[in-house]
Amino acid sequence: MKVGIIGASGYSGEVLVKLLLGHPHVTLAAVTSRTHAGKPLATVIPSVRGADRGLKFSDSNAEALAASDIDLFFLALPHGAAATYAKILVPAGKRVIDLSADFRIADLATYQKYYGEHHAPELLPHARYVLPELSPASWKSEAKLIASPGCYPTSILVPLWPLLKAGIVSREHIVVNSYSGVSGAGKKAEEMYLFVERAESIKAYGLVKHRHLAEVEEQLSTHTGGTTILQFNPHLAPMRRGIATTITVPAAQGATIERLYEAWNAAYASTPFVQVLASNQTPDTAHTVGTNRVDISAVHDPRTNNFVITSAEDNLVKGASGQAVQIMNLWCGFPETAGLV
Amino acid sequence: MKVGIIGASGYSGEVLVKLLLGHPHVTLAAVTSRTHAGKPLATVIPSVRGADRGLKFSDSNAEALAASDIDLFFLALPHGAAATYAKILVPAGKRVIDLSADFRIADLATYQKYYGEHHAPELLPHARYVLPELSPASWKSEAKLIASPGCYPTSILVPLWPLLKAGIVSREHIVVNSYSGVSGAGKKAEEMYLFVERAESIKAYGLVKHRHLAEVEEQLSTHTGGTTILQFNPHLAPMRRGIATTITVPAAQGATIERLYEAWNAAYASTPFVQVLASNQTPDTAHTVGTNRVDISAVHDPRTNNFVITSAEDNLVKGASGQAVQIMNLWCGFPETAGLV
Amino acid sequence: MKVGIIGASGYSGEVLVKLLLGHPHVTLAAVTSRTHAGKPLATVIPSVRGADRGLKFSDSNAEALAASDIDLFFLALPHGAAATYAKILVPAGKRVIDLSADFRIADLATYQKYYGEHHAPELLPHARYVLPELSPASWKSEAKLIASPGCYPTSILVPLWPLLKAGIVSREHIVVNSYSGVSGAGKKAEEMYLFVERAESIKAYGLVKHRHLAEVEEQLSTHTGGTTILQFNPHLAPMRRGIATTITVPAAQGATIERLYEAWNAAYASTPFVQVLASNQTPDTAHTVGTNRVDISAVHDPRTNNFVITSAEDNLVKGASGQAVQIMNLWCGFPETAGLV
Amino acid sequence: MKVGIIGASGYSGEVLVKLLLGHPHVTLAAVTSRTHAGKPLATVIPSVRGADRGLKFSDSNAEALAASDIDLFFLALPHGAAATYAKILVPAGKRVIDLSADFRIADLATYQKYYGEHHAPELLPHARYVLPELSPASWKSEAKLIASPGCYPTSILVPLWPLLKAGIVSREHIVVNSYSGVSGAGKKAEEMYLFVERAESIKAYGLVKHRHLAEVEEQLSTHTGGTTILQFNPHLAPMRRGIATTITVPAAQGATIERLYEAWNAAYASTPFVQVLASNQTPDTAHTVGTNRVDISAVHDPRTNNFVITSAEDNLVKGASGQAVQIMNLWCGFPETAGLV
Repeated sequence: MKVGIIGASGYSGEVLVKLLLGHPHVTLAAVTSRTHAGKPLATVIPSVRGADRGLKFSDSNAEALAASDIDLFFLALPHGAAATYAKILVPAGKRVIDLSADFRIADLATYQKYYGEHHAPELLPHARYVLPELSPASWKSEAKLIASPGCYPTSILVPLWPLLKAGIVSREHIVVNSYSGVSGAGKKAEEMYLFVERAESIKAYGLVKHRHLAEVEEQLSTHTGGTTILQFNPHLAPMRRGIATTITVPAAQGATIERLYEAWNAAYASTPFVQVLASNQTPDTAHTVGTNRVDISAVHDPRTNNFVITSAEDNLVKGASGQAVQIMNLWCGFPETAGLV
Repeated sequence: MKVGIIGASGYSGEVLVKLLLGHPHVTLAAVTSRTHAGKPLATVIPSVRGADRGLKFSDSNAEALAASDIDLFFLALPHGAAATYAKILVPAGKRVIDLSADFRIADLATYQKYYGEHHAPELLPHARYVLPELSPASWKSEAKLIASPGCYPTSILVPLWPLLKAGIVSREHIVVNSYSGVSGAGKKAEEMYLFVERAESIKAYGLVKHRHLAEVEEQLSTHTGGTTILQFNPHLAPMRRGIATTITVPAAQGATIERLYEAWNAAYASTPFVQVLASNQTPDTAHTVGTNRVDISAVHDPRTNNFVITSAEDNLVKGASGQAVQIMNLWCGFPETAGLV
Repeated sequence: MKVGIIGASGYSGEVLVKLLLGHPHVTLAAVTSRTHAGKPLATVIPSVRGADRGLKFSDSNAEALAASDIDLFFLALPHGAAATYAKILVPAGKRVIDLSADFRIADLATYQKYYGEHHAPELLPHARYVLPELSPASWKSEAKLIASPGCYPTSILVPLWPLLKAGIVSREHIVVNSYSGVSGAGKKAEEMYLFVERAESIKAYGLVKHRHLAEVEEQLSTHTGGTTILQFNPHLAPMRRGIATTITVPAAQGATIERLYEAWNAAYASTPFVQVLASNQTPDTAHTVGTNRVDISAVHDPRTNNFVITSAEDNLVKGASGQAVQIMNLWCGFPETAGLV
Repeated sequence: MKVGIIGASGYSGEVLVKLLLGHPHVTLAAVTSRTHAGKPLATVIPSVRGADRGLKFSDSNAEALAASDIDLFFLALPHGAAATYAKILVPAGKRVIDLSADFRIADLATYQKYYGEHHAPELLPHARYVLPELSPASWKSEAKLIASPGCYPTSILVPLWPLLKAGIVSREHIVVNSYSGVSGAGKKAEEMYLFVERAESIKAYGLVKHRHLAEVEEQLSTHTGGTTILQFNPHLAPMRRGIATTITVPAAQGATIERLYEAWNAAYASTPFVQVLASNQTPDTAHTVGTNRVDISAVHDPRTNNFVITSAEDNLVKGASGQAVQIMNLWCGFPETAGLV
């Protein structure tokens, strides 16, 4: 099977290139970039020197790509741009996995409130938001176009979704604090992201209405049995990769830490990419970097009757490109872990 | 005036040495360390090379220090050890500022629950917990022994205390997430604190009953008009110094962001070391490192009716040694900022 | 084919575990550790959670391992300890690849000068030092025991060896400065390696007779046509992984940058793991981390008639475990890149 | 005395602002910036919040500044721009200390070769390059305009100058490797200086003719008794501040490590800002950050007959703004260490 990546010059594009170059069941046949068209892959992504199979960046012409023999495209583009490619590739019968936010929000008005104009609203009914471990299995037959979840949302939905669904935690007073490595901001040549500014620095940003809230709340409200609103406080941390999320949420009536773990074990007993840690362990982003895992753990506080839930992941792998490859694997009938361990 | 530091080989001891060497109104006359007795200061604290005035570490003999002509002692010792020195120095008429937890908790039972045995409970009635910007001014005449606040507590109490007192925020569902630089753990040669383990890593620890909770809750309960329980989630961040704290708390009935800022401005209008930032700014630990400041800011979320409050400080300065010097300045009648800007 | 790792709790052991778990042609059948015997792999190496195939650390009993059905052992032990295992495994007919220094020095007196007593000198004639791209091919048939090169030596030998052999550079006045990530020091709970001490810090250490000099000089002297002595200045850099080496060496009579590149291209035209960069590019450790590559480049300075040669590698992969796997691949007839891309 | 800073929005400008705000003998009366004119100091330099004495950035009008009552100006501008201010301020009788390269090179042709056109060559005869510990004392009476040395040059000249002058080391085969924190590159919003690119990365750059060579070679050739050419290999290291320099140089005929230390001790016995460490110690950038010190050390290698000399400094303090303040102190008759400890 031939696959292509549209827009591969950013940080998640780079990780996607590496994963697909090493994938046992697909051939990376095209990597496009408006800026870098014509250049060998390794001049832009030096970490693939000697392993780039002679690939060059090609131009990002949607019509030409639609006419090619490539079966599946990953869109590693900014939101807004992604829809303009999907609009041409999907009708041409190509499978499309979009890493941007363009098809993550089923409700058009919500999309517009958080992101502005939508460039392909006609595709929304054909798109599915796929968090592989949690989304209803029907997506495999229904989807023409898949929205791969955002980095923060993955770290929040994985621990919270099964607990809300099982009625273990309150829907009120959910407080989420997330700390992201700087690659989460993308490869932007702005003063704020300079080494000297970010090293040895932690700060909150994007309070109180970060865009990722839209998909988190829509997914939880749609799939767990009730409207869910949460406080989401994102921060920048002085590291390249990784997201650590800490969720404080009141225990539901009668809930115990044992029941919480039962709900998690029911959801994740056989999932290779969600690891449930014991209550006395806390996930560490460093243990997940380079893997497609989310590690989760929880503890109950008898003083407050809150659960404190912690998760860690690599924002560029399980939070972006690794998850997109996992989705491809499931969609195309490959082993779920192919190219990911 | 002559001052001494007992136990100056740790990270806060080092900062204290530097602050006192440069202080215009006191002479650093003794620096003790059991491990380093006899060594020149600069062999243990190389950053003071050429500026150490020939000082050497002396032995930590409490009786000898009590008999010396030194007026005031800083205790930069682990909890437990500090009390054994205070026990001898205070009755000898020395002023003592303790950077450990030994006299931070007025209630003995609470101390014992969090820290174990207390080695000088008879001094508790004479000790005062002094957060200079907030503690009732009577401490200046009453105290024989001062407990300098902990690093996390300073970053929490400064923003929260005036708001609870003014009834701006709820006493329920207070969620505090703090991220500390690794120096917060002290100079411990343990695998967990190795560069390779902590670089590029964020993780929660000490859930759900970190020792600093004891003083935070006692101070807030004593001084703001009602018992206050909070969820405190501490984390380690890959930086040397700095604490970033993010507090999520429901707005009290009728509270607005304007009233919140009024309460803060009333408390901090003329304080050099608490800076109130505009609601659209977020404090950054990097901007406070090396200073004795806490920067605070807040935003209201109309979706949740929560306030999200952020603070940043240098854990070793305002969170430890700088604050201790500030306390000395006020106690001894020096300008509050002497040696601190 | 079954392989085992003896002593897998350090940083290179961890990387070796991951490489072998993902290797297509071998089964990791045993991982030993005196300290961790009995524990699941993932409790000690959390990054393999969910991918550890249920492996547990077993005890490090040399006789039992010699009697097992495992074909090849990697020794990821400190020098000294490695020889005591090789002593039993090699006579039992096991293939052994040693990542320590125990068999890197053919000359016993030199070994003793740098490392002290040798515990299996009788094996030295059967051992071969194998830098896969450079060592004479006869090792494949001759060796019973292979010494995998050190991290610094790999970064020095790869660029320098072909140039000395081709007479492009002087044997006099060779100056090598290397900067290593902190993992190069091993997982040692010592104050010097704490995060707070090493972050934001660069310093030289081990001047002027670092142990790795012994193998560098012996290899160059043996294989490039003349006794070679060099100045080697190692440093610690505030990063986890990576070695950047900069070599300044006078050009030999008549040598040009073109001839230098010809010599390199002749040596490395078809090697997947040595990448020759253009003269105007400089290798960057970050581009090699996680790969089994050494990137090399050079520039000529007409003012001094020196060549300035730069190289970069991941000290734990090409500098240790990746190279050991590459050696295994070649020794056992697997594709050279198996499990390494 | 009133002083002003022209161009204070970069990293060395920021350090200069802080040093001068705390200086006991001068008043910081003007801080200019074309970009930030009108803004309060603390909005651009948040670390001075609460300590900025109400200062605002003013416009950078050279004529207006020349007509003001300010006595001395620091130019913290890019090379080229600095000369255009000096051209107006010096004839107006103002003292000027230039932190740029514009007046560091006495030889115009050399300046032009390294930096291009010079905008005020008429001032070159009135300018003096002042490395306070080493430059001939006549500068105090002669200079109208002072060139403050570059960051790399300070770390090289301090150890090397007295040794060349005393004939302890060879003038041939001098090899200098320097590693600089990223702030050395200035506050440039370029991809190369992003956190994600620089963290965990070391690489050489600017080979083989970095601009700082010009002043190093001119100073050594002018003041130590013979033309001196050296190999200078600068690198970027993953830290914010600090320069570590390692110099390898052959010992001169008959030179010993004792004679080397004698030469250093003669030069630096009573200098507060150059600290000579024992031969078995190596300077660490972390120990100098925030200080105006250069720490130096050396070791002799009997195998090569080279000296390996190491130095460390804070590139923004002794390598830039601290040194400029030290020069002011000496020029204006203040204590040398005023405002610097």
